[in-house]
Amino acid sequence: MAESSSAFSKKKRLEILEGIGREVYSHIEKMENPYLTITTRGLSNIKYDKENRMIKLGESTSKRYFLNTGHVRKFTQTLAVAALSKNLIENDKHTSLRSAFYQIRRTIPGTKIDIVDDQAETNKSIEDLELITDLTREQLNINANKNGAVAGEVIIEDRGDVIDWSKLGSGGWAIPSNVEDIIFKKVDAKFVLYFEKSTMFERANEDKAWRKLHCVIISSQGQATRGIRRLLQRLSREHNLPVYVLTDADIWGVYIYSAIKFGSITLAHVSDKLALPEAKFLGLTVEDIEKYDLKRHLIKFKDVDIARMKQIRNYDWFKNSKEWMAELDKMEKLGAKVELDAFTAKGLSFITEKYLPDKLKEGKFLD
Amino acid sequence: MAESSSAFSKKKRLEILEGIGREVYSHIEKMENPYLTITTRGLSNIKYDKENRMIKLGESTSKRYFLNTGHVRKFTQTLAVAALSKNLIENDKHTSLRSAFYQIRRTIPGTKIDIVDDQAETNKSIEDLELITDLTREQLNINANKNGAVAGEVIIEDRGDVIDWSKLGSGGWAIPSNVEDIIFKKVDAKFVLYFEKSTMFERANEDKAWRKLHCVIISSQGQATRGIRRLLQRLSREHNLPVYVLTDADIWGVYIYSAIKFGSITLAHVSDKLALPEAKFLGLTVEDIEKYDLKRHLIKFKDVDIARMKQIRNYDWFKNSKEWMAELDKMEKLGAKVELDAFTAKGLSFITEKYLPDKLKEGKFLD
Repeated sequence: MAESSSAFSKKKRLEILEGIGREVYSHIEKMENPYLTITTRGLSNIKYDKENRMIKLGESTSKRYFLNTGHVRKFTQTLAVAALSKNLIENDKHTSLRSAFYQIRRTIPGTKIDIVDDQAETNKSIEDLELITDLTREQLNINANKNGAVAGEVIIEDRGDVIDWSKLGSGGWAIPSNVEDIIFKKVDAKFVLYFEKSTMFERANEDKAWRKLHCVIISSQGQATRGIRRLLQRLSREHNLPVYVLTDADIWGVYIYSAIKFGSITLAHVSDKLALPEAKFLGLTVEDIEKYDLKRHLIKFKDVDIARMKQIRNYDWFKNSKEWMAELDKMEKLGAKVELDAFTAKGLSFITEKYLPDKLKEGKFLD
Repeated sequence: MAESSSAFSKKKRLEILEGIGREVYSHIEKMENPYLTITTRGLSNIKYDKENRMIKLGESTSKRYFLNTGHVRKFTQTLAVAALSKNLIENDKHTSLRSAFYQIRRTIPGTKIDIVDDQAETNKSIEDLELITDLTREQLNINANKNGAVAGEVIIEDRGDVIDWSKLGSGGWAIPSNVEDIIFKKVDAKFVLYFEKSTMFERANEDKAWRKLHCVIISSQGQATRGIRRLLQRLSREHNLPVYVLTDADIWGVYIYSAIKFGSITLAHVSDKLALPEAKFLGLTVEDIEKYDLKRHLIKFKDVDIARMKQIRNYDWFKNSKEWMAELDKMEKLGAKVELDAFTAKGLSFITEKYLPDKLKEGKFLD
């Protein structure tokens, strides 16, 4: 168990990347037109995988040729990204999307042509490389933005430091953008709670709710970063911890849950590594609003809430779920939202001392 | 030195808050119309204090009466916030702006009138209470949002936990929204570096640049949160560490620096506790762009950059500084920006291994 998710595969990751170069080289030796095979992205090839409950890419692929004026630019960019990634992995260094663009940018000698003009090009190439190698950007040592904090009775090892998530005061551990290499030394928790709001995290952390509830608490602000999603996934897969998501009772909360659980359209090509079909929606539900007498704190939907509700009702992964459609019906009928913060009207620790224990005991989660 | 910034004053803070109630009570006993005296906020009473180099409120005050239909609502709200804050401090608990609204919201018995209808009202009352008590929101146990991370050879104590900022792997310590109660046990650093970008923080942290440069590194994403600003200030004031701000060479970077150093217009009433006139601008400067051969990475200004530049040139605190006007002139003439990330084109660690040591050795900072 005490193993990082990618450390064992540094060698393997380098082999995969070298494999790309070797294949292109063999095309050249055989005097063939070198090419890369890439799964087609874009809405036409995105589907909802009912069985695995994930947004995924379909089977459609295309070849990208070097000797093709329409392809050569992307072909070159993808190889340049592969070379950069190989170099990063060899040197145990990480870069960001923005820096990757600067590192690749150069003029081809004897010409006035730059390999890349715009970060959008390197971003696409990095996504292509994820598809070709079946490695995530993080495993290619290219990191996203960092955000969020975690606390709980868990001890990890990261870059040689042993870090006890239960001994970090009011702050918690700042979650890095890349959690592939952290090693779980001891995980003493029964589940993981993801809060939509960092203020709720601070509240729960001040009460050391993770000790009383025997759980790990995590939050960022709004949407979970890629680093957080991978951390949730590793805690779930490697340590069998159920993951519960706690958001406001509104359509934005539902979407935060949706991205954690089913993945997202823009990241459909890495759903396997980021989606978490095991995640459950703990609340707030419309029923909670009744039960905990929160009607006093209703905030009427605005047009933008209603428009977003329409979109989300149409997503296959909700359309196919009876219980979710029932919940969205109730939410629509109510025409108003309630925020997590409203619980504080009942006492500052009501949410951790009453609501959460009740909910967990009931075991009634939206799936 | 090993003392928190507010722990010693829990008693004092309670005295101040009780003092407000006692004064109002004495008005009533004397059959006078109870009132609160509050410094006027708003642009008319905001001025740039040249001597202390801070944006500040002027001397203008106004009285807010209970028996005045135009005042009674705000008067009551301010007292309700004072009561909430007293209760929080007594119980060693903290709340957020949003939760404070929910905690105060209630219907006055026998009427249909709510004490507050909207968070904007509690926000204003909390600002009023900051002015009346001369305490910050954090000292009143009402927290802002949390963001950002810190690393370096510093050991703190927070809520009974001893935390070594040099032993937190790739993440760092997640900076809480409220740093008033942290106790510095050991500060082994010569200065503090604030990065505009969390990706640069991760880069520097991966290289353990804080060890080589003997400094503390801090970042959030863009503007520094209140928690970060207080942390910078405490490290500066209590440990005599110079604070250097490192941003992109653009007008947005200049504004990030401006808010840290001079304070901001919306928070002018707490400049004393948040502004940091000692802070210095380390870069990127237009000169750096020349010197480090970054011209290849110029990104042309957009209309929005040019508009913001015009606003910022007009701020008193820049208008009065010859060197800043010269810098803004150069930036305007260049008509383009360069991002910190561009340094990675010269090698992933160029910024920490070459640029920063050079800059610090030169000691040429914009003030």
